[in-house]
Amino acid sequence: MALPGFRDFYPDDCAFRNALFAKWREVAHRYGFVEYDGPPLEPLDLFTKKSGQEIVTQLYNFKDKGDREVALRPEMTPTLARLVTARHKDFKKPLKWFSIPQVFRYERQQRGRLREHYQFNCDIIGEAGLEADIELIALVIDTLRAFGLTEKDFVVRLSDRQFWTDFMNAHGVPEDQRYAFIQAVDKSERETREKTAEKLGPLAEEVFTVLEKGAASERLDTVETGLRHRGLQDYVKRDFTVVRGLAYYTGVVFEVFDRSGEFRAIAGGGRYDALLKNLGDVDLPALGFGMGDVVLGEILKAKQWSPWKFPHLKAFLLIADEQFRPQAMRLLQELRYIYAIDYSFQPAKVGKQFQLAEERGCTVAIIIDQQIESGVVEVKDLATRAQSKVSLAEGGLALFLQELEAKNQRKQCGLPEEESPSS
Amino acid sequence: MALPGFRDFYPDDCAFRNALFAKWREVAHRYGFVEYDGPPLEPLDLFTKKSGQEIVTQLYNFKDKGDREVALRPEMTPTLARLVTARHKDFKKPLKWFSIPQVFRYERQQRGRLREHYQFNCDIIGEAGLEADIELIALVIDTLRAFGLTEKDFVVRLSDRQFWTDFMNAHGVPEDQRYAFIQAVDKSERETREKTAEKLGPLAEEVFTVLEKGAASERLDTVETGLRHRGLQDYVKRDFTVVRGLAYYTGVVFEVFDRSGEFRAIAGGGRYDALLKNLGDVDLPALGFGMGDVVLGEILKAKQWSPWKFPHLKAFLLIADEQFRPQAMRLLQELRYIYAIDYSFQPAKVGKQFQLAEERGCTVAIIIDQQIESGVVEVKDLATRAQSKVSLAEGGLALFLQELEAKNQRKQCGLPEEESPSS
Repeated sequence: MALPGFRDFYPDDCAFRNALFAKWREVAHRYGFVEYDGPPLEPLDLFTKKSGQEIVTQLYNFKDKGDREVALRPEMTPTLARLVTARHKDFKKPLKWFSIPQVFRYERQQRGRLREHYQFNCDIIGEAGLEADIELIALVIDTLRAFGLTEKDFVVRLSDRQFWTDFMNAHGVPEDQRYAFIQAVDKSERETREKTAEKLGPLAEEVFTVLEKGAASERLDTVETGLRHRGLQDYVKRDFTVVRGLAYYTGVVFEVFDRSGEFRAIAGGGRYDALLKNLGDVDLPALGFGMGDVVLGEILKAKQWSPWKFPHLKAFLLIADEQFRPQAMRLLQELRYIYAIDYSFQPAKVGKQFQLAEERGCTVAIIIDQQIESGVVEVKDLATRAQSKVSLAEGGLALFLQELEAKNQRKQCGLPEEESPSS
Repeated sequence: MALPGFRDFYPDDCAFRNALFAKWREVAHRYGFVEYDGPPLEPLDLFTKKSGQEIVTQLYNFKDKGDREVALRPEMTPTLARLVTARHKDFKKPLKWFSIPQVFRYERQQRGRLREHYQFNCDIIGEAGLEADIELIALVIDTLRAFGLTEKDFVVRLSDRQFWTDFMNAHGVPEDQRYAFIQAVDKSERETREKTAEKLGPLAEEVFTVLEKGAASERLDTVETGLRHRGLQDYVKRDFTVVRGLAYYTGVVFEVFDRSGEFRAIAGGGRYDALLKNLGDVDLPALGFGMGDVVLGEILKAKQWSPWKFPHLKAFLLIADEQFRPQAMRLLQELRYIYAIDYSFQPAKVGKQFQLAEERGCTVAIIIDQQIESGVVEVKDLATRAQSKVSLAEGGLALFLQELEAKNQRKQCGLPEEESPSS
């Protein structure tokens, strides 16, 4: 058994996970982001420096054999900060960097809550202007669109953390009450009005007005206009209850939710302009988001999204006459240069080999019998059952498979069958 | 700083690493292998059960907050055995499974020796016949060929562990001396003849004869014939010094080395038919190999292999007139559906934007100025400096970019420039 809270990835699970990763990478690359990574094990103080000693209760931490205090990473931002501050002079700003780390938290075990997950992290570093906020939010939207989700499926709740900081300044909320204030706003959606009012005291009415009627924010106006220029306005909604619990956010913040309200947040992020200065003494504005694989996976499964998989096996080499196995193996070797080919290790009846071909998801069988002595094989399309004699001379088989593949693709795309030029 | 022995992956390093992974996956899929994965953290006894208590000195092990003895995985085989024995009835045999885990060992720090690396693991489970050994060795060869390496660059040293077991049986070597015997054979290549002779005692001369002149092995005959059928005979060499230190190998074993002899082993593996029975009480024959990313990476870097990277940025959206930024952003959004497009967050002079485009590796610039009002943009090929007016109507720009891309690809492949049908 795997440890509680840890997942095994059997082949189907692994294909699903890898399909998520492939889409994440594809979209990030389309946006000009480049990938980085760091070690899953880091010095403990990298994490306590950012989040305080409290975080240790949630970490997988220990002393290594060299007496170093170490921990499995619970998030990627401290590693990103470490990498960027160490070598920021080597890179042109703004950086557009992404990563897909596995992260670990020792959480009290509850209703299948996991202790590890993968997180798509995208950050822009070194750009103070709101254009970066727009780009980042467009990226989070397009990432979900790449999975076939639309504005009917999810919404980005936009908010302005700076608005609340200004609000607290204007009303003289003392430093030591600010965390509680932010938490009360954060929880206002899930708690009764009375409870929230009690927490907010004399400011309650004014806060409720903001939450219900909204408030002016030039920052959000600019972001919304930018998203409108990209045709993405239907994916966002202003919502001042979004404050992101974490202490280090400084500007526009956002959380992405399924419209149905069934699931936990799909993604969240925002601007954290002071963090790199605090952690690494390098004064660079920054913003980013994280999107986990678990909630997204649940949503896609609920929508019966079938992941794009790595190329399936395409052909099965069916050895109908064992005496030609050596020639079959030579052909196998040639074809595998381009195609995915499987075959039976052991001699088996033709019918059994056809069955094996279908079990392995092959779409075509190449049948090896005595005709191979005159350079010919039979090729059977396993979908249509059509069978053809194909010459092995001058790459004829590779060409034949190519045409078959193109025909199948046209069919999958709903295109009409094309007459081949020669017919 | 990362922990000693752990690597950071800045974008160039990460692209190189991912290019290795992509090739590994590609070849494994061509051979009909499917990917699986498991947790990097496992119960400690999963590893001690296979390797004994001695392994603990090399592990990153600790007690988690639930008082469980856990360890970062030092290798993948125990996890594979756990997965397969738990659900072997759900899968048709033979299984052809691969994985690319990061594995961890607390080794005494020496000349940059790492404490983590990635390992391409391929295993075939449930096939006793030598055809599986041939398939596995063909896979290790084709994996290296996929990186452009040839029989001049590397060799697979083939051996037969069962031959040595039979030899020890025939000569009555007692159980408690067998490990020392195998170790002496293993080290014979690196130690003086005298030292090895001393270790082997009365068997020395006979062992030297085998090492120097070879010995009969039907198993190796069959494997070599099978590889000859596939045209891979020049990649292998019989070498009885290869025994693989690990206790659990039972049949054909192999190690892959750089021909120059400069580097440590690139890969190693073999048949381990008894392991699943010992670990999980499921009697399935099995064989596999592991290939690390570090030695392979060093060899490829020495040969100046430039990794296939994820699609580079293709186009730069150059905003020559800021008043058209909104239209530019709409175009950006449309094009990113297919292409990788970057742009400047901030208004900048045209010359500076061209410079940025080149820094980001863009091969083409799409220039936005007032012509966009009549549905036209200028497109500049940054390699040839050729500039064209392109209409935005009816997907004209996407088509133009497609043709440009095809032209560039023909050039990269050394093909002659093709006249477009319309000219």
